[in-house]
Amino acid sequence: MVALMFRMCIALVVATSAIIAQAADPLPSWNDTASKRAIVSFVEKTTAQDSPDFVPIPERVAVFDNDGTLWAEQPMYFQLFFALDRIRALAPQHPEWQEKEPFASLLKGDGKAALAEGEKAILEIIMATHAGMTTTEFEKIVNDWIATAKHPKTGMRYTEMVFQPMLELLAYLRANDFKTFIVSGGGIEFMRPWTEQVYGIPPEQVVGSSIQTKFELRDSTPVLVRLPKMNFVDDKEGKPVGIHSHIGRRPIAAFGNSDGDLQMLQWTAAGKGARLCLIVHHTDADREWAYDRKSHIGQLDKALDEAKARGWTVVDMKTDWKRIFPD
Amino acid sequence: MVALMFRMCIALVVATSAIIAQAADPLPSWNDTASKRAIVSFVEKTTAQDSPDFVPIPERVAVFDNDGTLWAEQPMYFQLFFALDRIRALAPQHPEWQEKEPFASLLKGDGKAALAEGEKAILEIIMATHAGMTTTEFEKIVNDWIATAKHPKTGMRYTEMVFQPMLELLAYLRANDFKTFIVSGGGIEFMRPWTEQVYGIPPEQVVGSSIQTKFELRDSTPVLVRLPKMNFVDDKEGKPVGIHSHIGRRPIAAFGNSDGDLQMLQWTAAGKGARLCLIVHHTDADREWAYDRKSHIGQLDKALDEAKARGWTVVDMKTDWKRIFPD
Repeated sequence: MVALMFRMCIALVVATSAIIAQAADPLPSWNDTASKRAIVSFVEKTTAQDSPDFVPIPERVAVFDNDGTLWAEQPMYFQLFFALDRIRALAPQHPEWQEKEPFASLLKGDGKAALAEGEKAILEIIMATHAGMTTTEFEKIVNDWIATAKHPKTGMRYTEMVFQPMLELLAYLRANDFKTFIVSGGGIEFMRPWTEQVYGIPPEQVVGSSIQTKFELRDSTPVLVRLPKMNFVDDKEGKPVGIHSHIGRRPIAAFGNSDGDLQMLQWTAAGKGARLCLIVHHTDADREWAYDRKSHIGQLDKALDEAKARGWTVVDMKTDWKRIFPD
Repeated sequence: MVALMFRMCIALVVATSAIIAQAADPLPSWNDTASKRAIVSFVEKTTAQDSPDFVPIPERVAVFDNDGTLWAEQPMYFQLFFALDRIRALAPQHPEWQEKEPFASLLKGDGKAALAEGEKAILEIIMATHAGMTTTEFEKIVNDWIATAKHPKTGMRYTEMVFQPMLELLAYLRANDFKTFIVSGGGIEFMRPWTEQVYGIPPEQVVGSSIQTKFELRDSTPVLVRLPKMNFVDDKEGKPVGIHSHIGRRPIAAFGNSDGDLQMLQWTAAGKGARLCLIVHHTDADREWAYDRKSHIGQLDKALDEAKARGWTVVDMKTDWKRIFPD
């Protein structure tokens, strides 16, 4: 009888431990590989009061690139799909676009010809679609698009193409009193309307590229008008500048996926104390996309070399992640 | 005996209530005037779950001007005292300043002659003292100065010349789940090193004017170098632009003291729902300074008219505040 009770107790303890262990895994979509262990080890050593690497709560700043790090970015940045949809929507008000590049080619469906002029064409498309309205009007345009538009290949809404393992990582860091920021080359006002709902990141914790805005009184109502003029490019060397300008302290953890994130990772790594620098390497052509050194979008070349040389964490999406997108 | 115990109980209850009431007053340095009642009424109606004016926590954004609103600003902005002290400290390395205006007059102690050229002279002084070093070096310079420099008239450290009633107001708002931000015409990097300790406002919640910075690798160590070139002027029409850029949502409460805050107050007032727009009017020549419509520093003219026309709260320092500075 005693032996039976003893065995029952053992069974109960084992089962309970298993349930607790499962419930307690903050990163269930991550396989138990070196990447996951590096993340957990960093969080544990920076948050344990008695750890030599302990970091006070106000200094627990973590920065995340967006395109290719928190959501997908192929076959082109999702903000470009937004711009193209806007060109189509606005075309009736712009008969001159039928003759004028890059708009004429775009409206004929010839993206390659439209973008033949490279950056100049992209800038023209951005200004034609992102400027000329108030900030309130632009927010509504973004909200309407993000709620309805679908990715041409997957048929999913763009906000469904966020990475489930990264959502868990954001939540895990916040549960450990980290403040999570987005630091993206994408447009700050293109992201802010939906980042709080999708990532749990409020607008004041979003850093991005921007065009200029101007304060005006219209019939004594104040508005901010979006001007067709660049204000700040939050990419490459711009990322540490954007971090310093918006956050004003150096992050202790940085997450990116491309050469555009290299300087942000360098800036983070150069601080004193424990650091976590992590690169998401897109290696899974079946479940997402596979690309790195030669990709036009999200090129990962120099940053991959530096990650290896410095022992940064490189996530292999194919082997490190149990799943890619949320159910 | 019973009667005595009863009277003792009554006395105890009365005394305890008085202590609780006193302890519970979140604004003990504010006299019980219309200004204090407007603040308390606003906080109560925006935070009570069953109030028609209830505001969800993430939207409880309050913005504060700094110079003249959170700390004093006479006889000139404290950042100018910092710049002048830097000119003196740097003079040995700049023999050319002995002949060159505005530095020559400054070094002779003739501030009036130095500033004869107005904004141009101030800009030259700012660039000579605020640029040319890394952000880390500048932070140390500010920290050293703020820890030691004293105001020429009061002999107090500058961070002792903060307004006790405003410290209480900041704490009261935060206790009610408001996020408090500084939105100042002053330099963002001049404020950030000490705002967390003095006001409880972390660097990422400080918005201000800035010069440009540039990312560089120095012997493979990344630095941000401060360039002698304006980046953003966070004053007047710039304040709503700065708010939108850094915070990305419209405040529901704004606190200023001069015409430089007018557009920030207008932008705040123009949102839907309950708003608190408040101006600190410097009316107390005995305990601080008295100035408004004709002052060169902190001019309060148009904003005073608009406050009266729109029913904004105007704090009369002399009658509304029990004390000015902390003990």
